[in-house]
Amino acid sequence: MHLYDYLDSGNGYKVRLLLAQLHLPYGWTNVDIDKGETRTAEFLARNANGRIPTLRLDDGTHLAESNAILWYLAEGSGFVPATRQGRAQVLQWMFFEQYSHEPYVATPRYICRHLPADHPRRAELPGRLEKGHAALAVMEGHLAARSFFVDDKYSIADIALYAYTHVAPDGGLELGAYPRVREWLSRVAAQADYVRLLDVPGTGAAT
Amino acid sequence: MHLYDYLDSGNGYKVRLLLAQLHLPYGWTNVDIDKGETRTAEFLARNANGRIPTLRLDDGTHLAESNAILWYLAEGSGFVPATRQGRAQVLQWMFFEQYSHEPYVATPRYICRHLPADHPRRAELPGRLEKGHAALAVMEGHLAARSFFVDDKYSIADIALYAYTHVAPDGGLELGAYPRVREWLSRVAAQADYVRLLDVPGTGAAT
Repeated sequence: MHLYDYLDSGNGYKVRLLLAQLHLPYGWTNVDIDKGETRTAEFLARNANGRIPTLRLDDGTHLAESNAILWYLAEGSGFVPATRQGRAQVLQWMFFEQYSHEPYVATPRYICRHLPADHPRRAELPGRLEKGHAALAVMEGHLAARSFFVDDKYSIADIALYAYTHVAPDGGLELGAYPRVREWLSRVAAQADYVRLLDVPGTGAAT
Repeated sequence: MHLYDYLDSGNGYKVRLLLAQLHLPYGWTNVDIDKGETRTAEFLARNANGRIPTLRLDDGTHLAESNAILWYLAEGSGFVPATRQGRAQVLQWMFFEQYSHEPYVATPRYICRHLPADHPRRAELPGRLEKGHAALAVMEGHLAARSFFVDDKYSIADIALYAYTHVAPDGGLELGAYPRVREWLSRVAAQADYVRLLDVPGTGAAT
């Protein structure tokens, strides 16, 4: 398998974290989204939606959407629940992540880290951060009586939500008001074979 | 099962369409999102994220997120592929739908149908419609050589994408430039046990 990715992407990091924890070998290409490398004809032939991460499978086909890639890799493993209801709850939290969390937790981080300080998209920050706090409040409430998001067991739902939550302060979203979320972040970071967001695959070293 | 829903919601309609096609009986409550009925304490106890559709299962627990509900209902049926790769592709298109399609196809329709003509959110329309056209172009390209989104077979990926695509013109997103998408819409509407968006469950009559 070969992962087309961007090192600073939390969506890409989800896949890198799971691949490390599944002990699966893979090739890795950094595609610089800031330089338009996801909009070239070559890349669009891999993913017509022009986004990383995109995983090339061994049969030469490509799979896109970080959470669909997580599902593909984890199906049948201990990272996906064995019950129908548990699987649906994992998907519920992964769809929550993409719809109610990522645009308001990840996008502020992107604006702050990748765009100039006078960029007009800075005007989006207050509205996005308000919804980011709403997403964190939902997570805080859910974790009040739980160690992990589904069945009290670490799963791809935790990986999907961890990726941008643990770096939320990079976008101005402070975690001080969410002690249960911070405890859960520590539990995720303590899992076996954990790797960090900026660890370059195959090197074991952070940039 | 009991579905908490809002009749004009495409996300709710996805679940109604699949339930009809699976011949599954269910109770139904219309929750008026325009009157804040998803923000009451009673509703937030069912779904802390305050959104419809939310499905109460027979054991009294609740499942949220339209596409997670589709997966729960369809798992093991002919509406989900039998192969690992097919299942991942279905999820890829369902995550595409929630991240790259729904905010730009469904939200303009909501703004046009549910908010006053002088509402400040009208200013969002041009930007959203531009991204809506980008999503439709991705679908048009994918359907160039296919009858349905995955494995050339009707699945919950088609249901998820059909729900808001077939009413995209309600939000000002015209489908004239997408003949493959329009042919696919016709194929979906010709499926057995098809119901329409505004068909009230259990009555067989449109409002």
